[in-house]
Amino acid sequence: MLTQQEAAQCRDDAADLFHKAGIVITDAEKAQIETADFGLNEFIQTGLGVLVYVNTERCCAKELAMWSRQTCPEHRHPPVGSDPGKEETFRCRWGTVYVYVEGQAAENPACQPPVGREATYTVWHEIELHPGDQYTILPNTLHWFQAGDEGAVVSEFSTRSTDENDFFTDPDIQRATQIV
Amino acid sequence: MLTQQEAAQCRDDAADLFHKAGIVITDAEKAQIETADFGLNEFIQTGLGVLVYVNTERCCAKELAMWSRQTCPEHRHPPVGSDPGKEETFRCRWGTVYVYVEGQAAENPACQPPVGREATYTVWHEIELHPGDQYTILPNTLHWFQAGDEGAVVSEFSTRSTDENDFFTDPDIQRATQIV
Repeated sequence: MLTQQEAAQCRDDAADLFHKAGIVITDAEKAQIETADFGLNEFIQTGLGVLVYVNTERCCAKELAMWSRQTCPEHRHPPVGSDPGKEETFRCRWGTVYVYVEGQAAENPACQPPVGREATYTVWHEIELHPGDQYTILPNTLHWFQAGDEGAVVSEFSTRSTDENDFFTDPDIQRATQIV
Repeated sequence: MLTQQEAAQCRDDAADLFHKAGIVITDAEKAQIETADFGLNEFIQTGLGVLVYVNTERCCAKELAMWSRQTCPEHRHPPVGSDPGKEETFRCRWGTVYVYVEGQAAENPACQPPVGREATYTVWHEIELHPGDQYTILPNTLHWFQAGDEGAVVSEFSTRSTDENDFFTDPDIQRATQIV
């Protein structure tokens, strides 16, 4: 987990990425950027800067900041009660992001999984997104994504976000972000 | 209604507004920008450039381009069957937008309704949005909005968009965009 100082630096870096993407955020929003490290304590390798704009009972919008080659680890959004599970669209705003989903595996994928975690990356159908490109992930579909060499900024449009229900392939992952 | 040539020019202008806001769109998306004139044939006065990124059964995201002092006319999103009605969040990306909703009326509102249509503007609680500001409108709530002097670009995050169900205060309005 990140220290307060590290988390503050990561929020600064995420705000810089949003600025590069032409995205204006308020000071209050900057202070709310989540530095998700998924409990692996390797934020620059496996992590994500997350700014939630809105998350109601029905819909959600976020901006995601990704450092160079940073990975959001493999997971899916399962059905919960009467809800079929979270549906989400990723739209690349800046940089490049590679999204991996179930389906025919790429022969020469553009990304490698985080070192030491290779066994927990099982889906290899590759979608490469540049600014203006987008891709919709249906509920309960395994997916992971990694930024290209310069990092990435990605808008996420979705149904209600309930991180606590996400299922991660890697059993070591804890989704709740802890700052020490 | 706009001619093909007028609509093409408006799509160019909308793409310029998106560019000013730092928003990258593809050529295919540019060709899909809707030039909504609400059937009043006064697009620059009452209208909206609309680019729908995604609109599934469950959620929707759009970019809205607004010309200087252009107005999106007063309407609400009523319940339809088991659906409580569309919920939407407007986030200002560029310029200024004034949103009017039910509630205490502004004493000195920043906007005037479109000339000749004054009687069809009945809610006057004013919310002024600059880049980075946003506001969520609950279902079935009357609202209208107008851009400031330089125009505006607004992101809309919402539940499923079904324009045909919208209720407009002005009985002359037809939501479906027609190009001649």
